[in-house]
Amino acid sequence: MSRKLRMGLVGGSAGSFIGRIHRIAAELDGEAQLVCGAFSSDAARSRAAGEAYHVEPSRAYASYFEMFEQERQLPASERMDFVAIVTPNHVHYEPARLALENGFHVVIDKPMCFSMEQALSLQKIVAQTKNILAVTYTYSGYPMVKEAKALIAAGRIGTLRKIYVEYPQGWLSTAVEGKGQRQAQWRTDPDRSGAGGAIGDIGTHAAHLAEYVSGLRITGINAVLTAVVAGRRLDDDSAIILRFDNGASGVLTATQVAAGEENNLRIRIYGEKGGLDWQQVEPNSLTLRFLNEPAQTLRAGWGYLSPEATEYSRTPAGHPEGYLEAFANIYAAFFRAVRAHASGKDVGAARCDFPDVDAGVRGMAFIDAALRSAQSDQKWTSFL
Amino acid sequence: MSRKLRMGLVGGSAGSFIGRIHRIAAELDGEAQLVCGAFSSDAARSRAAGEAYHVEPSRAYASYFEMFEQERQLPASERMDFVAIVTPNHVHYEPARLALENGFHVVIDKPMCFSMEQALSLQKIVAQTKNILAVTYTYSGYPMVKEAKALIAAGRIGTLRKIYVEYPQGWLSTAVEGKGQRQAQWRTDPDRSGAGGAIGDIGTHAAHLAEYVSGLRITGINAVLTAVVAGRRLDDDSAIILRFDNGASGVLTATQVAAGEENNLRIRIYGEKGGLDWQQVEPNSLTLRFLNEPAQTLRAGWGYLSPEATEYSRTPAGHPEGYLEAFANIYAAFFRAVRAHASGKDVGAARCDFPDVDAGVRGMAFIDAALRSAQSDQKWTSFL
Amino acid sequence: MSRKLRMGLVGGSAGSFIGRIHRIAAELDGEAQLVCGAFSSDAARSRAAGEAYHVEPSRAYASYFEMFEQERQLPASERMDFVAIVTPNHVHYEPARLALENGFHVVIDKPMCFSMEQALSLQKIVAQTKNILAVTYTYSGYPMVKEAKALIAAGRIGTLRKIYVEYPQGWLSTAVEGKGQRQAQWRTDPDRSGAGGAIGDIGTHAAHLAEYVSGLRITGINAVLTAVVAGRRLDDDSAIILRFDNGASGVLTATQVAAGEENNLRIRIYGEKGGLDWQQVEPNSLTLRFLNEPAQTLRAGWGYLSPEATEYSRTPAGHPEGYLEAFANIYAAFFRAVRAHASGKDVGAARCDFPDVDAGVRGMAFIDAALRSAQSDQKWTSFL
Amino acid sequence: MSRKLRMGLVGGSAGSFIGRIHRIAAELDGEAQLVCGAFSSDAARSRAAGEAYHVEPSRAYASYFEMFEQERQLPASERMDFVAIVTPNHVHYEPARLALENGFHVVIDKPMCFSMEQALSLQKIVAQTKNILAVTYTYSGYPMVKEAKALIAAGRIGTLRKIYVEYPQGWLSTAVEGKGQRQAQWRTDPDRSGAGGAIGDIGTHAAHLAEYVSGLRITGINAVLTAVVAGRRLDDDSAIILRFDNGASGVLTATQVAAGEENNLRIRIYGEKGGLDWQQVEPNSLTLRFLNEPAQTLRAGWGYLSPEATEYSRTPAGHPEGYLEAFANIYAAFFRAVRAHASGKDVGAARCDFPDVDAGVRGMAFIDAALRSAQSDQKWTSFL
Repeated sequence: MSRKLRMGLVGGSAGSFIGRIHRIAAELDGEAQLVCGAFSSDAARSRAAGEAYHVEPSRAYASYFEMFEQERQLPASERMDFVAIVTPNHVHYEPARLALENGFHVVIDKPMCFSMEQALSLQKIVAQTKNILAVTYTYSGYPMVKEAKALIAAGRIGTLRKIYVEYPQGWLSTAVEGKGQRQAQWRTDPDRSGAGGAIGDIGTHAAHLAEYVSGLRITGINAVLTAVVAGRRLDDDSAIILRFDNGASGVLTATQVAAGEENNLRIRIYGEKGGLDWQQVEPNSLTLRFLNEPAQTLRAGWGYLSPEATEYSRTPAGHPEGYLEAFANIYAAFFRAVRAHASGKDVGAARCDFPDVDAGVRGMAFIDAALRSAQSDQKWTSFL
Repeated sequence: MSRKLRMGLVGGSAGSFIGRIHRIAAELDGEAQLVCGAFSSDAARSRAAGEAYHVEPSRAYASYFEMFEQERQLPASERMDFVAIVTPNHVHYEPARLALENGFHVVIDKPMCFSMEQALSLQKIVAQTKNILAVTYTYSGYPMVKEAKALIAAGRIGTLRKIYVEYPQGWLSTAVEGKGQRQAQWRTDPDRSGAGGAIGDIGTHAAHLAEYVSGLRITGINAVLTAVVAGRRLDDDSAIILRFDNGASGVLTATQVAAGEENNLRIRIYGEKGGLDWQQVEPNSLTLRFLNEPAQTLRAGWGYLSPEATEYSRTPAGHPEGYLEAFANIYAAFFRAVRAHASGKDVGAARCDFPDVDAGVRGMAFIDAALRSAQSDQKWTSFL
Repeated sequence: MSRKLRMGLVGGSAGSFIGRIHRIAAELDGEAQLVCGAFSSDAARSRAAGEAYHVEPSRAYASYFEMFEQERQLPASERMDFVAIVTPNHVHYEPARLALENGFHVVIDKPMCFSMEQALSLQKIVAQTKNILAVTYTYSGYPMVKEAKALIAAGRIGTLRKIYVEYPQGWLSTAVEGKGQRQAQWRTDPDRSGAGGAIGDIGTHAAHLAEYVSGLRITGINAVLTAVVAGRRLDDDSAIILRFDNGASGVLTATQVAAGEENNLRIRIYGEKGGLDWQQVEPNSLTLRFLNEPAQTLRAGWGYLSPEATEYSRTPAGHPEGYLEAFANIYAAFFRAVRAHASGKDVGAARCDFPDVDAGVRGMAFIDAALRSAQSDQKWTSFL
Repeated sequence: MSRKLRMGLVGGSAGSFIGRIHRIAAELDGEAQLVCGAFSSDAARSRAAGEAYHVEPSRAYASYFEMFEQERQLPASERMDFVAIVTPNHVHYEPARLALENGFHVVIDKPMCFSMEQALSLQKIVAQTKNILAVTYTYSGYPMVKEAKALIAAGRIGTLRKIYVEYPQGWLSTAVEGKGQRQAQWRTDPDRSGAGGAIGDIGTHAAHLAEYVSGLRITGINAVLTAVVAGRRLDDDSAIILRFDNGASGVLTATQVAAGEENNLRIRIYGEKGGLDWQQVEPNSLTLRFLNEPAQTLRAGWGYLSPEATEYSRTPAGHPEGYLEAFANIYAAFFRAVRAHASGKDVGAARCDFPDVDAGVRGMAFIDAALRSAQSDQKWTSFL
């Protein structure tokens, strides 16, 4: 299948930040091309978006129903291969289900859907259809995150003891949802976002990162969720003490009211022999500490990195890659899985390392457990 | 009283780190001089220490009883003015009580004593004797910590919402107490350290800093304390979710098993309008963020700082001050209070800004509350 | 012209780093697509590259002569619009000249060509053909570099006095050109690289950045060039004191033997009222200093930035962009110029802000002046 | 000689920054005590300073002549041991000469004196009197500077190739000398400062640091000195390309018009195998890079450091030391030399590692060579 994969979009019309990002990420390595979309449920807006994306007018659809229907009937040499769903959370499940059932692979923004029920349903459909579903837990796509995971798996810092993951943002410090900020509107609206606010929007990123890098599973949650800004119906702030399956403990904080902060996801993990530290705003560095040695700063692009990190780098050291490239790495792994699915050839798990439907289910379960814990007077709520 | 104040030491013989630090800090500004000490309960060791400190042989005492007795009888022109107590926690209360009752002012290392009872007793004795007692919560002595406090007090970041304070160390990552490390031995021994391990050794620093800078009081504690290293009888790790009296919430982590970490006390506070960030390992910088403005890095020694910060700086910008100078700032404020006590003149609260016996009591209460919470299944334990 | 522009490549076969980079950068914003290439002068290698790029086999040409000839004859709806030349320096001029003369726009890697003569000739051809030529001085594409330029132009730091630009790399610290490193082979070979080594490869980036950001022109050069590694025929290290046309002075260092360094281009500029500091390895930050104020850290993606910086950002604050996006910004501006050329509509200089043929000539003149100065015993050599 | 050494001061009355610094530094380790001073040539001011320093009124002298005369006649058990000279440059030579000839050791601020002639004369007097003279090139007192020196001496980064040393300050960006700034007044006045401005005030620090850390000697100088601020008679800015005796080259910049900068002395040295990087504003870190390994951050206070660094540290890792402690390290080494001088016992060069009269002479020679080069049209001026 030496050709570009053909991509469709659900969502992504004018004003959508994440739609453009998915397009860039999917096309970055020259392995895919956006060919169609149901960019908006408003036909005119969808057409306008199609034009902006330089998509053929006939393939700018007015609904995802129409898109799946039409694309399904195109010859295999033209037909969309996969769809990326970039709508608010309440419009994740239905298009994903339909896409899978119509034979398309799916990329979906996190959190995977609106409720735990939907998540489990999608998991079943993926198992039945054997199509591939990826959830864009973007931050696990960074090369130095892969390196951190590889170092831990290789035992470099010993048995893990402590995991600190924090995710401060400041953009919801005031009630911007009341001032026309569209990103804020749906995220603070339980009808579109689901039962979790910050916990669903960014807490789930943090939880995924913690489990992904550590290789551990969260088993206990002691959560305090707060709606700090007056009048807000969903949490905009969370602090959670964690227990992991190997006995390690941790702390997860995710807040959108840290005034002045950008998007400073950071993870620090300590084991018996050392620790590591990674921050998303300077993603090409990974600090590694040991008990009685100088700290080391590992940097993307060097020959001393693991194959896992090297696989997901495009530039030599000192030519920084960023968020879009991390996003593209999720797609790159997804594409290898899609091509393997078509060819029937196994390409190895490491090369297809992306968050799949199980990661999506686990993310929804995390939100669910955090919300249950937050409502409980008991210190600990068990998680799965 | 234009003369140097005369200092005595309880503890501080060979191998004591903190004894030397107190001597340096007290003498740094040329306002005091070490003249005597009960450096060790072993007479020969005390003599040897006296010689190393260049103290007159006759004033290197074999016990603090002897020291207080002898010094009391010296003429006012020679007599010790104050004593610094630098022994392990279980030898804080008794010498402090005796010193106060014999007319000497007292400086004492944190935590102030061994138990809540002792703390309340000392509070009473201070009130009765009217002598002055300072507790060396060193980190509140840094100029940029003073600046942070002043900025918050002036409302620069608005009503406070979130306080994150973290204190990772790595030096107890292995059972060094079993390998002759004396600092570790008493700190991990409940008979000498008290009921708290890391929570007492460093958690109390973090709690004091949070209250000092914010001007708020902790009212609720949700604590998880752990003895991570096998065989350890006291906690070496803690994670605590906090509630403050104005409704703000926070997270405090203090751990001594963050392998590879040094002494990275850090505090971040966010209000409605902005946030600030200070780290002890780079203490001359304070980062200030606002909702829609570039972050600012305030640096020690500049003319734009508050009088509170300027008062406690010795060098121009770019000539870094450190831990010893912060420590000396606690002494500087204490000395001003001692001189005011002698002269009867008020010199203003800002100039005498040091942690006093009430801060010491509050620190002990924090340890107590954290330990109670840690043993409870309930999420929240109230604090005072 | 609401369609993607069609791109051809000269060079870029397997093993070419910069070919892939140009493809990514050109396609990043969905405004162009690679459709053909003379990827190698070896026909089989060119075919293989074409397949890897998912280009139609018929458009993977064995030479650029063939490519220009064939593409010229294609219908306007299929024909290549522009060519990117990514071969070593000695194969820049000829394909550029031919492309321009055959009606194609050109993007060319820096330095623009092999000699000053070639540079002046290209300048003439551009003037005659009125086609557009861009030189990829990539670093001027970063949003925070645009911001720096805008701040200076607005007088924020006052009349400029000092410009420090440094560019340390370490990859040529040993004679890797003797061990099969292809990137090193041609760069250290005067027959392929031209008379300048490090000065041409990276010094010219630094000089361009200094002039671009400051808006000043270098008028005097005091250069010391060295071939540090034994046996090397071209300079791998340079230190240059600079004079600028407004009387400011500066220092430029460019070295490829700073062992352990990556690609740490940094520029600091000081004026009467303040200074600014930008580093390529952390490109989303720009530090701004003033005489008696806290330093400010401006960050990409915020609303407080200039339109010039905002125009060239794709992600919100805290979602780092990097080298590929900076590269894509050169292309984005070039594309706007190409579309304006086609439509005859002026879109404004700011939106077409890319290094053009004049910047290419100036870069060659800088190399020439640096080499002349290096050979002179006189302190100063004048530059244009 | 188990007693404190007795210190006198020449200069250091109210308003003197550096006098207080010397007092703190000398007394920091409890090995010396200020006992007398000719704090000012105004008798009343000298008395007032003596009182502020808590010195006996009879030992606050009205002139250094009087001080040397009186102290010489005191019994050995009371007499001053050494004098620190902290006056402007034009009042260095005479008191130093007199002190040495009267049997006192001398500590003197850099640059050592006013002219090359004076420097050579002092060198002779030291040789004749065998008394000890230290010049406070403070920055060589930092533990991590000692570490850098030790690593290079041990060959860790191989044969040295490049040395970059920079010293940007901003405090003379405007003509503050015309607005009553006393520190600026004498430094910009050739009658008090000597023929060098920034080059003498800070350039000489940078040159000393480069030679001290590298163990190399500067042999060639290509200097451009500028008086940037209108009306200034001495240079406030310098840029110098350097040659070293092993063939390495380097760049030294020292400027006092880098608006907004504090005191950011930084040195980077690269050898065949790696490089190191140290910055004075964050003095407890030293970055070490190697060809194909992660960069290492060495931090003060760790067990992995060299004995040379460990000798000069007071606090455990993570308890930052700063400028005053570096200054105290110069004194500590000087004191060991003074005690060795008295006892006749050799204590080893490493333990007496301070800048002596030869370093002082070399500093004056550097200023001299830089000034000669600046006036020459020839690129290179040789330096001793």
